[in-house]
Amino acid sequence: MTLAAETVQSYERTALELAERLRSDAIQRDKQGGTPKVQRDWIRESGLLKLLIPREYGGDGQPWSAVLRVVRILAEADASLAHLYGYHFLCLVAPHLAGTPEQIAHFYTVTARNNYFWGNSSNPLVKTIIGRREGDRVIVNGSKTFSSGSPDSDLLAISWNDAETGEYYEGIIPTSRPGVEVLDDWDNMGQRQTGSGTVTFRDVPVEKEEILETPYAGHTVFSTIIPIVSQSILANIFAGSAEGALEDAKRYTHDTSRPWYTSGYARADEDPSIWRQYGELWTSSIAATSLVEKAADKLDRLWERGTDLTEEERGECAVIVAAANVHAGRVALDITSRIFDVMGARATASKYGFDRFWRNVRTHTLHNPAEYKLRNIGAWVLNGTLPEPGYYS
Amino acid sequence: MTLAAETVQSYERTALELAERLRSDAIQRDKQGGTPKVQRDWIRESGLLKLLIPREYGGDGQPWSAVLRVVRILAEADASLAHLYGYHFLCLVAPHLAGTPEQIAHFYTVTARNNYFWGNSSNPLVKTIIGRREGDRVIVNGSKTFSSGSPDSDLLAISWNDAETGEYYEGIIPTSRPGVEVLDDWDNMGQRQTGSGTVTFRDVPVEKEEILETPYAGHTVFSTIIPIVSQSILANIFAGSAEGALEDAKRYTHDTSRPWYTSGYARADEDPSIWRQYGELWTSSIAATSLVEKAADKLDRLWERGTDLTEEERGECAVIVAAANVHAGRVALDITSRIFDVMGARATASKYGFDRFWRNVRTHTLHNPAEYKLRNIGAWVLNGTLPEPGYYS
Amino acid sequence: MTLAAETVQSYERTALELAERLRSDAIQRDKQGGTPKVQRDWIRESGLLKLLIPREYGGDGQPWSAVLRVVRILAEADASLAHLYGYHFLCLVAPHLAGTPEQIAHFYTVTARNNYFWGNSSNPLVKTIIGRREGDRVIVNGSKTFSSGSPDSDLLAISWNDAETGEYYEGIIPTSRPGVEVLDDWDNMGQRQTGSGTVTFRDVPVEKEEILETPYAGHTVFSTIIPIVSQSILANIFAGSAEGALEDAKRYTHDTSRPWYTSGYARADEDPSIWRQYGELWTSSIAATSLVEKAADKLDRLWERGTDLTEEERGECAVIVAAANVHAGRVALDITSRIFDVMGARATASKYGFDRFWRNVRTHTLHNPAEYKLRNIGAWVLNGTLPEPGYYS
Amino acid sequence: MTLAAETVQSYERTALELAERLRSDAIQRDKQGGTPKVQRDWIRESGLLKLLIPREYGGDGQPWSAVLRVVRILAEADASLAHLYGYHFLCLVAPHLAGTPEQIAHFYTVTARNNYFWGNSSNPLVKTIIGRREGDRVIVNGSKTFSSGSPDSDLLAISWNDAETGEYYEGIIPTSRPGVEVLDDWDNMGQRQTGSGTVTFRDVPVEKEEILETPYAGHTVFSTIIPIVSQSILANIFAGSAEGALEDAKRYTHDTSRPWYTSGYARADEDPSIWRQYGELWTSSIAATSLVEKAADKLDRLWERGTDLTEEERGECAVIVAAANVHAGRVALDITSRIFDVMGARATASKYGFDRFWRNVRTHTLHNPAEYKLRNIGAWVLNGTLPEPGYYS
Repeated sequence: MTLAAETVQSYERTALELAERLRSDAIQRDKQGGTPKVQRDWIRESGLLKLLIPREYGGDGQPWSAVLRVVRILAEADASLAHLYGYHFLCLVAPHLAGTPEQIAHFYTVTARNNYFWGNSSNPLVKTIIGRREGDRVIVNGSKTFSSGSPDSDLLAISWNDAETGEYYEGIIPTSRPGVEVLDDWDNMGQRQTGSGTVTFRDVPVEKEEILETPYAGHTVFSTIIPIVSQSILANIFAGSAEGALEDAKRYTHDTSRPWYTSGYARADEDPSIWRQYGELWTSSIAATSLVEKAADKLDRLWERGTDLTEEERGECAVIVAAANVHAGRVALDITSRIFDVMGARATASKYGFDRFWRNVRTHTLHNPAEYKLRNIGAWVLNGTLPEPGYYS
Repeated sequence: MTLAAETVQSYERTALELAERLRSDAIQRDKQGGTPKVQRDWIRESGLLKLLIPREYGGDGQPWSAVLRVVRILAEADASLAHLYGYHFLCLVAPHLAGTPEQIAHFYTVTARNNYFWGNSSNPLVKTIIGRREGDRVIVNGSKTFSSGSPDSDLLAISWNDAETGEYYEGIIPTSRPGVEVLDDWDNMGQRQTGSGTVTFRDVPVEKEEILETPYAGHTVFSTIIPIVSQSILANIFAGSAEGALEDAKRYTHDTSRPWYTSGYARADEDPSIWRQYGELWTSSIAATSLVEKAADKLDRLWERGTDLTEEERGECAVIVAAANVHAGRVALDITSRIFDVMGARATASKYGFDRFWRNVRTHTLHNPAEYKLRNIGAWVLNGTLPEPGYYS
Repeated sequence: MTLAAETVQSYERTALELAERLRSDAIQRDKQGGTPKVQRDWIRESGLLKLLIPREYGGDGQPWSAVLRVVRILAEADASLAHLYGYHFLCLVAPHLAGTPEQIAHFYTVTARNNYFWGNSSNPLVKTIIGRREGDRVIVNGSKTFSSGSPDSDLLAISWNDAETGEYYEGIIPTSRPGVEVLDDWDNMGQRQTGSGTVTFRDVPVEKEEILETPYAGHTVFSTIIPIVSQSILANIFAGSAEGALEDAKRYTHDTSRPWYTSGYARADEDPSIWRQYGELWTSSIAATSLVEKAADKLDRLWERGTDLTEEERGECAVIVAAANVHAGRVALDITSRIFDVMGARATASKYGFDRFWRNVRTHTLHNPAEYKLRNIGAWVLNGTLPEPGYYS
Repeated sequence: MTLAAETVQSYERTALELAERLRSDAIQRDKQGGTPKVQRDWIRESGLLKLLIPREYGGDGQPWSAVLRVVRILAEADASLAHLYGYHFLCLVAPHLAGTPEQIAHFYTVTARNNYFWGNSSNPLVKTIIGRREGDRVIVNGSKTFSSGSPDSDLLAISWNDAETGEYYEGIIPTSRPGVEVLDDWDNMGQRQTGSGTVTFRDVPVEKEEILETPYAGHTVFSTIIPIVSQSILANIFAGSAEGALEDAKRYTHDTSRPWYTSGYARADEDPSIWRQYGELWTSSIAATSLVEKAADKLDRLWERGTDLTEEERGECAVIVAAANVHAGRVALDITSRIFDVMGARATASKYGFDRFWRNVRTHTLHNPAEYKLRNIGAWVLNGTLPEPGYYS
């Protein structure tokens, strides 16, 4: 067994153990919502927060596909925690894409050393945070919704528009900085423990070394790949949610479901029509997973290219990631609804919480519309047009 | 305009007004579950509980299609109340199918006079209630789950197996009779105010005149049609839920949704890709409704035939009702999930409660498996075999 | 039995007999394409070409739903002949919509008297025929593709654009008029005997009384309903094709299919998984038929309104007809492909010609894109916008 | 670039060139059916018939995934030739699975040396060929349908049941042996040049060294994997057909389709709703391809295991291959039908032959029912039951 393979086994094993612990009270936590402080600490302690950080900065030096694999494993048990874990990296690489060498070194190092958990409060689409220059620093004011992972985060990726020029900036600050208030007001039908609520900023200073260059200014193609990363994370949450739903359903059918009274079988798991339906669900799930893995491979290739990345390489990766995202999302919606057919009426009892899989996927697949991703894919297929780098493409 | 048509308009108008009132707090009531006492009283006061009762007994003398139309209208606003309303009639006609002329007259008359609301605690599948003969009367003991509509009911349809012979019996008793305890313990992910929980019976006497002849003994074909009625009610709850979800979604898209930032439109409801999706949803909904209406028509024909009903007439009606049930259920599952695509991410906020449509349909479509209904349909299509009268066919 | 009902039975019986005769060599005729002269004469002789013509002009005075019912019956056996039959009426009513009272009387009367078969060579979309005024008459030159039903037609609906003004006109001429050449060059993968090829016009005179007022000029709302009629005809061809495919498949499964060797059954038609699949197919078919019938009902109402028709009435009918057309088309595509699953590999032998159902439906559903019909439906659902009267809406 | 990688590029390049040549008259050859003698010779000359043969016997020593990649490339242009190519290997490895070391060496060597093309006339399901022992040899008589690739083959894989014991045997003979008659009577709606017709045997001797040990006797697990190989070949024909259909459609939409007249675009390939549809089709296709590739990888692992293969390893590979087969088949059916939506009505002209993709896939997906493959998958998912080695599992 080679060392590389052992490392792989190691993080997967850690993730599987973590998933098992998350599973133990995922149903209750889905009902209660709020911030899963204990579970976030389990992730911190697991060491998995530095999986992607290059070895030179104290991390594990694993590729994106490793992160995405962990996201998928966690999502099988708890899509909220998988979301928090995936978005941690989405924020964490902001300096890598748009920072100075010093910023890259600094943020990677402190994160690896302290197992910092990053939260997200940046969003280029809405201009609700304004930054005012004050010498080298900037004072930001305003508020931001959909701030996934902000509650209980150590570092917060934020963004603002300059009061004078209107230009868009990103920065990284400690979540504990005075003036930052994390409202923890997310109360939606799914992804209930992602803390995707509001953060308000009142005269919050952002120091020079915390301000990144703008990722969307596009000095390099590489600086524009955030949407590809975020769509990849979501694709894996969807695929993992589907796998988890199927796994839970299977256990229920096996252990609890009653055979249909005219089926002629003594147990539900002996009924060939139940087999067929599981065959359908698994086939659908494994196809989605295969595509998601292929897209993860492409992302690894893209990440390795760094600032040498060309527009064409970026575009082709964006297309396959968009396809994986749309496909996995649809498959997950379908599977999380159809599992009930193979469990039966009693599986709808609140105590089982089986509907959380569908609610999670339904909520998260609305992150951005399939329609526009499909158009990007089709324009490339038909005319060879590369998706324009944007907030979601 | 003929009188018949006026009557039609009248009950539809009443139902629409009732639906409007139910809609006002349906979201909160879905969250809280339990028994919708106030809303059940609105239904009592509306007079709609006697819609099907023949005029000679003080009712409105309307056909089943009228009842099903009301079920559909109520389901647009509140699938739980639609369920309670529909099941009221399912129980109410038990004497019509399996009772003596005196029982028919008695139960229709007292119901029409007092606006009695019937609840269901009978189920031929499970043998958890035992009746012991004591002269003319029977003393029943045991408990029954899935007793939809039992809380706050006036009369309760019950069933038991005879302690000695094992034979199956049905009866009707006041819910308030000593020894009857309605636990109101239904806590499932959907149809949350249907009170489909447990009823326990401790030495409950059932008097001679409350005991029906067994519907499944099949002295007449007509006495075996209960599953056709119940599958019809469900089909209309599904179709109505789909229509209601679509209606609510449309209002949200119109009033609240934001256009996608690359769409080029100032409003979401101007985006042709949103139009296309509404076109898909409505097309799907109207097809389901058309089939449900055609099946309701067949049910009217079957009901008119009374004890002259032949096996073949019964079988053909059973087949189309099964098809309507399966089809409407699937369409409703699909629509209640896809409405989110045309509303967007913010529509997942708990305050809107839009997921209740899917949860309701998903719960109720598990009443009995599509697999076995489809087999019945297919055996008839392929070989002309009539579905064997049973508990669900 | 009332007289009305007898009439109904009479034309349905005639259509069923005709369908049976068409079925006898439909497979061979599909392979050979060309003009089904003999079969067109059977239709002439059947008297069904005057079904819609008002009694006062010698017709049967039946509503559109009767015509559409016949279209569906014929399509079960032969979608090409159903197409020719349906389009006959589409052309035949042109005077009713856009002609003078004299033209209406004349064309209805001669058609009823002689069992004339109308063909179509008009199309407002392409401007390939030019008419030059010459006193009261017009001399037309040019050519037209997609001229369904032109070969072996007695009267031909044509259209042209005026050489000077560019205005669009329609007229009716005998197909035998010198200068008219029907090329009979249709060779497509489906609807192979519809003669939907090219007609050329060389100095063909159209007399004053043969020239209609322009239907799309819209002096009345009623004059703009041709697309609603044509979409209705197509919807019924689709629904009928689905029913026919299912009927043929069923016979094959019953008589010829072998059971799968691991099924445990001695006959394919005893396998419950085959039943389930027939259940699926029939459910889907009956839903499509129900919607198509509902739409036909609406068309009858619209037709009765005549020149009193309002824009709103027209729009709502257009919407439901569009929905029926899209839905029936999709269902037919699905069923005509899935029938093979329940027949097995040997059913692909060329001699059976079972693929003709799919080829017919696939060809005809491309008449105009579902995308744009769905947008029209959705804009009405969402915003109440009526479809703009056009060539396909 | 490593040598291995160069070899990869080399065979893919050869296959792509071959596909290009096949494409040039694939439409006409589909119409005419029969034996593609010229094209089979191109394959012989390409050297690709020895791709899988170990280097020690003069072959290229490539894994199954290479063969399947070539199958997919050829299927993009011509599913019949892809079928013939894939089945060549299915027959060719019979000695590898069930022969003596001498037989393995002999048949690999003569095939590599002479570019022999193998045909198939064996089938364990039907017992229509009887072998009579005559000393060391066997004399076979009878006939076999579905003998894909028998016309113009050099060697023929055959099978028979022993006249006395009824036991099943397989053997390999030159197709030219006296008494063998290849009828070339395949005339089905798809896969029209696969020569899947009848072969008759009249007193045909099979020599001792041509007789294999029985593959299904199961002395080793490895000897039972033929169904896994055949299902893999089909999966790749399906995936390739889908890709080819999409590629051809795209070229047509780009070069020939007209924009819809109300779309507002000057070209069809500028219409975002056309983009969306291509996005859907490509997403579906790439998911299928991903799964098919993952399954091919598993097949490579299984093949490497040789006689060490365990039942569990076999079973898990059988499951994923079955899933890939079912999934790719359905996706291919869907794509080959939906391409017309993005090409428009004129694309149905016979000269384009676009319907051949659907006809091919529809024919070949009936090879064995999805139902039973899905049950095998589901029983494994639900209960861990391995598919019983059989003719199709």
